[in-house]
Amino acid sequence: MINWEDIKNQLIIFLKEEVKKTGHEKVTVGLSGGLDSAVVAVLCKEAFGDNLNCVLMPSQFSSLSSTEHAIEVCEKFDIKYEIIPIEPMVSAYIENMDEDKLRIGNFSARMRMSVLYDVSSREKSIVVGTSNKSELLLGYGTIFGDIACAINPIGEMYKSDEFDFARTLGVPESILSKPPSADLWEGQSDEEELGYSYKHMDDVLKQMVDNGKSKDELLALGFEEELIDLLTYRIKANAFKGKLPTIANIKWN
Amino acid sequence: MINWEDIKNQLIIFLKEEVKKTGHEKVTVGLSGGLDSAVVAVLCKEAFGDNLNCVLMPSQFSSLSSTEHAIEVCEKFDIKYEIIPIEPMVSAYIENMDEDKLRIGNFSARMRMSVLYDVSSREKSIVVGTSNKSELLLGYGTIFGDIACAINPIGEMYKSDEFDFARTLGVPESILSKPPSADLWEGQSDEEELGYSYKHMDDVLKQMVDNGKSKDELLALGFEEELIDLLTYRIKANAFKGKLPTIANIKWN
Repeated sequence: MINWEDIKNQLIIFLKEEVKKTGHEKVTVGLSGGLDSAVVAVLCKEAFGDNLNCVLMPSQFSSLSSTEHAIEVCEKFDIKYEIIPIEPMVSAYIENMDEDKLRIGNFSARMRMSVLYDVSSREKSIVVGTSNKSELLLGYGTIFGDIACAINPIGEMYKSDEFDFARTLGVPESILSKPPSADLWEGQSDEEELGYSYKHMDDVLKQMVDNGKSKDELLALGFEEELIDLLTYRIKANAFKGKLPTIANIKWN
Repeated sequence: MINWEDIKNQLIIFLKEEVKKTGHEKVTVGLSGGLDSAVVAVLCKEAFGDNLNCVLMPSQFSSLSSTEHAIEVCEKFDIKYEIIPIEPMVSAYIENMDEDKLRIGNFSARMRMSVLYDVSSREKSIVVGTSNKSELLLGYGTIFGDIACAINPIGEMYKSDEFDFARTLGVPESILSKPPSADLWEGQSDEEELGYSYKHMDDVLKQMVDNGKSKDELLALGFEEELIDLLTYRIKANAFKGKLPTIANIKWN
């Protein structure tokens, strides 16, 4: 049994300490209406009270219910929020993107980052990130987009574990009960897109990444070869998203 | 005497090797009309030939001559380029920015990153960065904006040294002779804004950063206390721009 109360306290201490180190008092969180940002917003409300402000950034492609769910979180926990649609910026560029959903999705994520960092600059606050461990490992996020932040309290928490944590925190049922979605277009489902449930992928990832199990060991544990290969490939192919730029070392002679 | 031919060869090898590691063949560079991106574009042309494409991304605030200078580089070195103004996206958001030049500048840098990464996605190419060592140390750039890239050949080269290198490479005189500018608004000058010439700042930075000299030692070398303090402050205050997000380590018990 995971002691979620204890983990909640660990994360609140983490948030307070890390923000204090920066010399700032306020934090800003982008709220999508999904599970990850709801969890982070509730943690930040407990850690920083009214020094938290949230930003909702709908686009023409995100679903209306997402905004409703995000507002529900803010109302339940008395969180200050503002709504800044990214639709105008996305529309201003969309003709360049050849109707490519992936490109539109990445561009939209970067528009949200740009708005979030601008609001954070106005507020003299720190941007708190909302990427979970499953997403970060699988590279299921946009570099310099939704992955971008100063500090992240849930980057070591697998998505499938996060549901229990969110329930402990009091995240509304409307968010807990809907299928995980990057919400880059109406009806998008992470699990359909990835081909497996988070629970199933996380079970493999925990053995593979946290316990260092080899492919043979994973097969012996009964996991499908196709899934093992998919996860291995994704981790390798997306590792760049968690790395700093490679800078040339010059020999000056 | 610095052997610039040798350094040019080192950087071309670096570029080829790093791009090869990613499994890609093409590179994309954002060309501003300034020195840094001209140097990187010329290096990339030598390393990748026609597998380089450049993107010029003027805004309503950048100077017309910048675009002219960028085109001059492309024509001289036979580099493919396209022009994608960020003006529509900046205009779509500008009313939110309280006419704050710094916020508009950072937002503009992030719009350029977003366009550059979208073009790079279309081209299946790698984004090559153009931040020099002086800028990176001083934090004179936008995180998730102009600093964002996959690989950077000039991040270990001080701005004041880069002029000689650029001359060796054949960068046009129009670019070599103008004062360095982030070009976030007409007439902006880095050196006016920072308060010192790059040459002067770099002389201190080399002793401070590369040779590990203490404040007392720097004073003994004849550098101004005010400048030493300014550089020390900037390096510390902007170090976050060169770091990955801090992720909470959870004790699961």
